[in-house]
Amino acid sequence: MENAVSESALNQLFLKARTYNEWSDKTVDDSTVRQVYELLKWGPTSANSCPARFMWVRSSEGKSRLAALASERNRPKILAAPLTVIVGNDLSFPDTLPKLIGERAAEAAKYFAQPGVTESTAMRNGSLQGAYLIIAARALGLDCGPMSGFDNAGVDKEFFAGTRVQSNFICNLGYGKPDSPFPRNPRLSFEEAGCLV
Amino acid sequence: MENAVSESALNQLFLKARTYNEWSDKTVDDSTVRQVYELLKWGPTSANSCPARFMWVRSSEGKSRLAALASERNRPKILAAPLTVIVGNDLSFPDTLPKLIGERAAEAAKYFAQPGVTESTAMRNGSLQGAYLIIAARALGLDCGPMSGFDNAGVDKEFFAGTRVQSNFICNLGYGKPDSPFPRNPRLSFEEAGCLV
Repeated sequence: MENAVSESALNQLFLKARTYNEWSDKTVDDSTVRQVYELLKWGPTSANSCPARFMWVRSSEGKSRLAALASERNRPKILAAPLTVIVGNDLSFPDTLPKLIGERAAEAAKYFAQPGVTESTAMRNGSLQGAYLIIAARALGLDCGPMSGFDNAGVDKEFFAGTRVQSNFICNLGYGKPDSPFPRNPRLSFEEAGCLV
Repeated sequence: MENAVSESALNQLFLKARTYNEWSDKTVDDSTVRQVYELLKWGPTSANSCPARFMWVRSSEGKSRLAALASERNRPKILAAPLTVIVGNDLSFPDTLPKLIGERAAEAAKYFAQPGVTESTAMRNGSLQGAYLIIAARALGLDCGPMSGFDNAGVDKEFFAGTRVQSNFICNLGYGKPDSPFPRNPRLSFEEAGCLV
């Protein structure tokens, strides 16, 4: 298609990208972590609310604390990965609106303060930003292993105490071992997943 | 960075991509719509649950029905865009698991049937897929205009009657007019949005 990115970029982002379960020894350095954030941060969110928070867990001490709160199946993956990001949604995100949207902050904060709207906005847009994280990491040549199986309340207490950040999902980052993905599962067809009207 | 996609692809996906408010006359044809789906569908979801559903609204009749349920600010944008996608979360997604994960479907369906888990899984992973839609569209050279300001219950009744699909957000797709984005807003710094431990 005209103006599409290259075939190799489409492969790297979507077509041949896979969820990895085992990792090479190559570490993810500080500069790489920051580059992932500096890319994902530009993805769009409602009223530029940017509610996601990222706890980049790389130390062995941090990994142990996180692995202890994960499902049995995910524990060894967390311990083996070079880095595991905890993606959280900050329910206090309206406090950052003056920086993010300037003089429109007051009006937006009033909208987001309606019952349930803070929570749904944080979850919707925090998840969008979690997906931007996955795609940004892949765009930079990293592999991902996103996971939902962990004790959310426990992780919130352990990693986000004293804040209103709620863990959403976690994602291993590193350089995957080529043979470690499971066989690829099918997807829904265009018609099964929707309709053009 | 080694193995990163090209600078121009990074620009197209994140660094120079913008939310568009006005559109050129160029239409979005059937083949393009399908290519967007065929790309986004490969993005990872929890247990390959793929809970997002996509109503691609292109007809003027469909546009009128949708615009009538949108906020005043979003109404003209919907009417002007070549196509508006309604991204929904299907609470009946466990029914598709036999196709998506084969023999693991029964175990996963039992897990997803726990109180609140169907809803949170649909919202988290449906939103991830919504972000894959945005990035896939950009990767193919389209511009996006995602929006949250509409009557969700009204849209569910109008477009998803007789199903358990709940609208999440909507997204204009087309070829944006270069000068139509607002000035770009700042983002949170790495430290404001997280921490490396």
